[in-house]
Amino acid sequence: MKLHGYFRSSAAYRVRIALNLKGLAAEHLPHHLRKGEQTAPDYLALNPQGLVPTLEDDAGAILTQSLAIIEWLDETHPTPPLLPLDALQRAKARAVAQAIACDIHPVQNLKVLARLRQLGLADDKVTEWAAWANREGLSACEKLVAEEPGPFCFGKVPTIADLCLVPQLANARRFGVDVSAFPRLLQAEAACKAVQAFADAAPDKQHDAE
Amino acid sequence: MKLHGYFRSSAAYRVRIALNLKGLAAEHLPHHLRKGEQTAPDYLALNPQGLVPTLEDDAGAILTQSLAIIEWLDETHPTPPLLPLDALQRAKARAVAQAIACDIHPVQNLKVLARLRQLGLADDKVTEWAAWANREGLSACEKLVAEEPGPFCFGKVPTIADLCLVPQLANARRFGVDVSAFPRLLQAEAACKAVQAFADAAPDKQHDAE
Repeated sequence: MKLHGYFRSSAAYRVRIALNLKGLAAEHLPHHLRKGEQTAPDYLALNPQGLVPTLEDDAGAILTQSLAIIEWLDETHPTPPLLPLDALQRAKARAVAQAIACDIHPVQNLKVLARLRQLGLADDKVTEWAAWANREGLSACEKLVAEEPGPFCFGKVPTIADLCLVPQLANARRFGVDVSAFPRLLQAEAACKAVQAFADAAPDKQHDAE
Repeated sequence: MKLHGYFRSSAAYRVRIALNLKGLAAEHLPHHLRKGEQTAPDYLALNPQGLVPTLEDDAGAILTQSLAIIEWLDETHPTPPLLPLDALQRAKARAVAQAIACDIHPVQNLKVLARLRQLGLADDKVTEWAAWANREGLSACEKLVAEEPGPFCFGKVPTIADLCLVPQLANARRFGVDVSAFPRLLQAEAACKAVQAFADAAPDKQHDAE
């Protein structure tokens, strides 16, 4: 398989963790988002949104959208599962993943922040926008997992919720959010960081890291 | 079941379609988003994000995030399926749903547009922002389904992609986007509109419609 990504993309980071947890090897093909490489015609032919990640499977099938890729990996390589087995718990894990992947990340991604600058917003206001999206969303996630057993978001093993959480907490810190307000999320993050699959997927471990 | 929603929320609209397709009755509890009812303490206790929809099942379980709710409905009430049976096609249908639910809708929802106004952006600029998010995202969706068999996004029956598409096209028109640029999406929309489950879920058919 080939994973088109970028070391600092949190959506690509989620898929790197999933591949590692499944024990699947992939060739990592970086596209430098700050240089605009994701808008090259060859890449847009693979991913019309001009976003990373894109996964090419061994048969040449093209998959986009990190959560769809993770669900596909989970359906085609079921062990270890990335979703709880119980339907209600699955829904709750997906809800946390989507609270991050829908309501935090896209509101503070590179494309949206660039658009805010085009509209004349100063850099400090753009950073405050990104911090706001992270603070609001992670506060809700803290409540969504507060009553769930730890140490991960949903119990003793990582799920799709943790795959989204770890990259998002890194973003939140980058934008200056005080993450100490989210003790339950930090507990889950600490559990994840002790897992080699998460550690190996970290941005600074990627060959395109700067 | 009880569905907490708002007639004009496209995320609630997706879930209304899913319930109708599954033949499931739900009590519809409206929360007037423009009056801020989604931030009432009682509602935040159900949905810490302060977003609609929230689904309460008959046993009192609380589900949030529209796509997680739809996947749960599909797992617990499998007929008719809302995802293709083939793993790769499932991934593609989810990718289109997520291109809409992650990368278009949250960038142009009420909360984000209100924040743009707080930052001093004039109303015409706010509308142009929303139009931009819809135009960019739907252009990509048009390409993602271009080669798929019709009339729906992924063949002869509606999937999660169509559940997201129909509400989003309504938003796009509201923000002045020329949707004639998306003929394949309009074909899918026309097929959906001929299905009673979609028609009954439309915003203007809801009891809280204004």
